[in-house]
Amino acid sequence: MQGHAPRSGGRLCLVGLGLMGGSLALALQRAEWPERIVGVSRSAETVSAALAAGAIDEGATSLSDALSGATTVVLATPVRTLLKQLPMVARVAPAGCLVMDLGSTKSRVCAAMATLPPGLQPVGGHPMCGRENGGFAAADADLYRDRVFVLCPLERTAPQALGRARRLAEEAGARTLILDAEAHDRAAAAISHLPHALAVTLINTVVGSGNADAWKLASSGFRDTTRLAASGVEMMLDVMLTNASMIDDWLAAFSIQLDELRQALNAADEAALRTALTMAQSRRRDLRI
Amino acid sequence: MQGHAPRSGGRLCLVGLGLMGGSLALALQRAEWPERIVGVSRSAETVSAALAAGAIDEGATSLSDALSGATTVVLATPVRTLLKQLPMVARVAPAGCLVMDLGSTKSRVCAAMATLPPGLQPVGGHPMCGRENGGFAAADADLYRDRVFVLCPLERTAPQALGRARRLAEEAGARTLILDAEAHDRAAAAISHLPHALAVTLINTVVGSGNADAWKLASSGFRDTTRLAASGVEMMLDVMLTNASMIDDWLAAFSIQLDELRQALNAADEAALRTALTMAQSRRRDLRI
Repeated sequence: MQGHAPRSGGRLCLVGLGLMGGSLALALQRAEWPERIVGVSRSAETVSAALAAGAIDEGATSLSDALSGATTVVLATPVRTLLKQLPMVARVAPAGCLVMDLGSTKSRVCAAMATLPPGLQPVGGHPMCGRENGGFAAADADLYRDRVFVLCPLERTAPQALGRARRLAEEAGARTLILDAEAHDRAAAAISHLPHALAVTLINTVVGSGNADAWKLASSGFRDTTRLAASGVEMMLDVMLTNASMIDDWLAAFSIQLDELRQALNAADEAALRTALTMAQSRRRDLRI
Repeated sequence: MQGHAPRSGGRLCLVGLGLMGGSLALALQRAEWPERIVGVSRSAETVSAALAAGAIDEGATSLSDALSGATTVVLATPVRTLLKQLPMVARVAPAGCLVMDLGSTKSRVCAAMATLPPGLQPVGGHPMCGRENGGFAAADADLYRDRVFVLCPLERTAPQALGRARRLAEEAGARTLILDAEAHDRAAAAISHLPHALAVTLINTVVGSGNADAWKLASSGFRDTTRLAASGVEMMLDVMLTNASMIDDWLAAFSIQLDELRQALNAADEAALRTALTMAQSRRRDLRI
């Protein structure tokens, strides 16, 4: 019989089989994760593709069916979608179940997780990886390898549940980092949401200018600086609308720095420009990613 | 005898053997460029390395010595350095000599080239390629391949001289694009100097915040958005100080767009955010680089 041997270690209900969920499934299968992996997608086609790729042991298009008997739930949908799925998890997931997510912002998610029934064990999660092209077709068992996977336990989270969440992330190949939700959202806004906003604005500035020569001259520097602007719109709308105040704090700080650079530029203040460029160059060259 | 066969097609005096000059020399040697390539660097070590690599046929540390008998001069030094070298070219280069440069900004260079003796044939040049790591050690015969090489002929430039400049760029593997210096500087400010300024400011905003978590979470998105901040400081100072007004025009336009995005973010105006993100995503995905 082609297929997967039955497992004795429980059921992992993985909700969302896009890039993040699909890659997690592939990585956990490779690591011989003990729980049977039940994949959930609204799309029967996606479920079929994930089954065919051996990413999941069982598939479902109904969340409530898949949740029954789950020992672990991982919500791998965009933030505002998973916020809508949590009430169903609250109603159906059995006591003792570990409830994780992979959402890009954590304060709203962890606040919603705090209202889950006391028998459930919530841990917010955010793996620091991604690509512009989403969907199960882009899934890759190596996506999580050596990437930071932030875990945000709640006050109520039992140490054993956090240990299970950590093991899941590590078996997928990631390095875990425990942060509280607010610290996560502030840091993620700096290094992910702010760069995305700048990339979007850079593209739209050039579009808005009507300057046709610019596109002809665009080279690898422009390509890389704007890469994040190609990110999925719905995912990034969720990020912006669930982390607006943190993002705006960074945009305000960025604007102040940019004004200082403009002043130095307009004053032809070579010493000030050299200081700014040297500091940025030095820090950037030290970046180990 | 190990070495290079004598050539009958004149002498190309290549001033500067860093990434741009060294790569051009390697590409022209591979293309069997008819002129003998005489490489000039202040550093005897660099000259030795370029000779050893077969990039140049002859080396010199003195610009005036190398210029005598030149049929082509290519200045591959940073903009403010080459502006200082042009008077020597004016004094020593023989009549009929093609005088090109590879500088990142063109208005100041072409204005200086306009004052060369009437017998010389100036053509401003700017190949749209580069890497953060400079120096002859980083030189690569493929650096110019399929990249846009902007040529800025002056009013006085003879068609034959422009033809020779075009052939040189094409033999190095590039695609040529004729632009006037001002149009070049406006377009290059949009897609190169503005992104560099944003990358520098992004890094310095995170440095200035003192937020240590941010660096731990930094991933490929932050890495790519900030790549240009690792560019050589002296080269980019030259760019900023010789194209300040164009760059500031773009920074002003960028700031207006950024303020609009902040307004939409703070108003949780999902429709406006979606419009901005969708426009940027669509244009970015159409980019062919």
